[in-house]
Amino acid sequence: MQHHSSDWEPRYARRAARMSGSEIRELLKLLEQPDVISFAGGIPDPALFPEAEARAAGAEIMADPKRARSALQYAVSEGDPGLRSWIAAHMTGLGVPCDSDNILVTSGSQQALDFLGRMLLMPGDTTLVRWPTYLGALQAFNAYEPRYDRLDPEGANIDAAGYAAAARDGDPTRAVKFAYTVPDFANPTGATMTLGAREKTLGLADALDIAVIEDAAYTALRYEGKPVPSIMAIDVARSGDVNASRVIYCGTFSKTLSPGLRVGWICASKALISRLVLVKQASDLNSPPLNQMIIHRLAETVFDAKVEEARGEYRRRRDLMLAALERHMPAGVSWTKPEGGLFIWVSFPDSVDTKALLERSVAEAKVAFVPGRAFHADGSGGNTARFSFSLASAAQIDTGIMALAPLISQDAQPIS
Amino acid sequence: MQHHSSDWEPRYARRAARMSGSEIRELLKLLEQPDVISFAGGIPDPALFPEAEARAAGAEIMADPKRARSALQYAVSEGDPGLRSWIAAHMTGLGVPCDSDNILVTSGSQQALDFLGRMLLMPGDTTLVRWPTYLGALQAFNAYEPRYDRLDPEGANIDAAGYAAAARDGDPTRAVKFAYTVPDFANPTGATMTLGAREKTLGLADALDIAVIEDAAYTALRYEGKPVPSIMAIDVARSGDVNASRVIYCGTFSKTLSPGLRVGWICASKALISRLVLVKQASDLNSPPLNQMIIHRLAETVFDAKVEEARGEYRRRRDLMLAALERHMPAGVSWTKPEGGLFIWVSFPDSVDTKALLERSVAEAKVAFVPGRAFHADGSGGNTARFSFSLASAAQIDTGIMALAPLISQDAQPIS
Repeated sequence: MQHHSSDWEPRYARRAARMSGSEIRELLKLLEQPDVISFAGGIPDPALFPEAEARAAGAEIMADPKRARSALQYAVSEGDPGLRSWIAAHMTGLGVPCDSDNILVTSGSQQALDFLGRMLLMPGDTTLVRWPTYLGALQAFNAYEPRYDRLDPEGANIDAAGYAAAARDGDPTRAVKFAYTVPDFANPTGATMTLGAREKTLGLADALDIAVIEDAAYTALRYEGKPVPSIMAIDVARSGDVNASRVIYCGTFSKTLSPGLRVGWICASKALISRLVLVKQASDLNSPPLNQMIIHRLAETVFDAKVEEARGEYRRRRDLMLAALERHMPAGVSWTKPEGGLFIWVSFPDSVDTKALLERSVAEAKVAFVPGRAFHADGSGGNTARFSFSLASAAQIDTGIMALAPLISQDAQPIS
Repeated sequence: MQHHSSDWEPRYARRAARMSGSEIRELLKLLEQPDVISFAGGIPDPALFPEAEARAAGAEIMADPKRARSALQYAVSEGDPGLRSWIAAHMTGLGVPCDSDNILVTSGSQQALDFLGRMLLMPGDTTLVRWPTYLGALQAFNAYEPRYDRLDPEGANIDAAGYAAAARDGDPTRAVKFAYTVPDFANPTGATMTLGAREKTLGLADALDIAVIEDAAYTALRYEGKPVPSIMAIDVARSGDVNASRVIYCGTFSKTLSPGLRVGWICASKALISRLVLVKQASDLNSPPLNQMIIHRLAETVFDAKVEEARGEYRRRRDLMLAALERHMPAGVSWTKPEGGLFIWVSFPDSVDTKALLERSVAEAKVAFVPGRAFHADGSGGNTARFSFSLASAAQIDTGIMALAPLISQDAQPIS
């Protein structure tokens, strides 16, 4: 029989239709063009990495024959015991008293989101997300074919009564599985949920009896104002027990120590963690022990100092970008003033299509950013964009915003 | 509203019912008991790891500021360009001419199996597997809820005509998506497929127009006899083009350089690789660049030497275990004589339940192995077991088999 097997499309599972590329990952490739000023990726500045300390930690581990062998061998799926214990103490310090059994080490928090989608979502289940929300979360969940509805605790919010009634009537098309949010300095908006919005989100989760996935990727990077308790801390304070909490907390070392070592964690009820360990086992057996051992050493020694340094540096760049926007942007353009994190969210007049703007911007102004549409589960937000201030120098920030501004003026209609 | 959120079971997706623990991973914990001789895990001997070379490679990477920053930063999802290029040359040397675009770097071949299940399987799709087969493959695929049927190219084989007819009739319950096999020194049997069996497998795949997933985890570890061409090499030789091949090849450095660095790969048609890159992106963004850079350096410098050393060492242990089985096992017990790999497959008389035997064996003989049932998609094989010779010393091999034998004698009925 003649075989023509090069056409793979008909073989794919239905979910493949929802697996699309990340504009952000594609934009990483623009960074290879040295003349483009990139406000695109949410990429930490490598100058802030604990490079010398990571080198020393790696050398120390590999110089001890017993540890070197552990670093190069298979390991338990749960994660490095020392690191899990450090993370449990860290979570306890954040108002979530817990122990190692509440922690699963993951390969970055992206893997946490994939595992939670796999564990919880059936095709057609509803997931409540912010509008806009983290693009990588949509990509992780999309493989499990959910619907999306809008989580908006500061606004009209969800039709809780409607969902609850549908659940009672056994309407499977309205089964809500969880709410997902980045409460601190969100990707992509930079916005922080107030205590009230967090409580309202928990109240909604109670009413619908659903889980809350709290993505705390940027929480350590606060530049001003008082920390707001995490949604998990609020829930645990009510019930007194992490094992009774409906919140699933995703943490990561990517924005504080190193993204490349790919170490994150899930903190949740012991019952859920024990099931997620099986997902980890089936997915990649275990995260590399060498990376976990290096991160553990760095966490023990330089975590606080590196966070302090990153805060100072990124705060300065945030201020520079806010000033540059103020200085150069035409009327009709508005933006968020984040208290932390890496992102400013810019809203242009409705007449501006930021995807087209990006093309012109890269070609004419040599400036890159991420158009906002990809962050919206419904494909809206065509006039919005995410600007990251994490990777550009002071000079680049002003130059880049100044170069971009004239491209908008030509399109923008003042709102009045 | 009062909330009792500690009962997570009702929240899980249906697929969770098929996610079960690995007896092998649980058995890893037995290794912590120093008085148990373990023939259980398929774990390489850490004494064979290129420890000094890995230490030097890590130090060299981290001493170069440019490479150190790349090692600690996010990276492209496809994998380290240098490593992909090495792997493409390696595959070309194995009779599969290809380039970097045909390679996706994965976190071990376990992740490759997970990605392929996600990309190809709908609930109820049929997967053809050996009986017994690699337990980790069943775990990876189970999350996507397939049925299993028996791939037996040395025996009666599959009802190809029946499946083909069902496909023509549009019977979705008989949609076959791929055949999965470990052709060289299989986990768990140690068996190697003949050239004829490989060709028959390809013929079956042609007849059903399905993919073949070739898991080459142990291929480098041949101790005697002539290498058999890989199924992919046979297919590519027919069509002349890797991009026209229906075979998906999963390779790994886990059995040759280090399992803990978690570096494997998929070699396949460019079209499929470009889709799998999106799965990688959504799953964990990218494998850690530090690990890929270390593996690349080791692959360039010590791959052949380490493979040669491992072959010599494991061949010796295989011979010792075969001799010990010959010396100590009662009549009615039979076993495979593998030409490579890490495993011997032992069949006991039907009256022996190897799960019960394991319990007695650990308690009374201080010897661990893996009962065979878990490797069978239908739960059969209760009288079989997998013995690994990779981790035990010469003395332990003889002592362990000798200590185990009396427990069998008490149950075994000679077959005559």
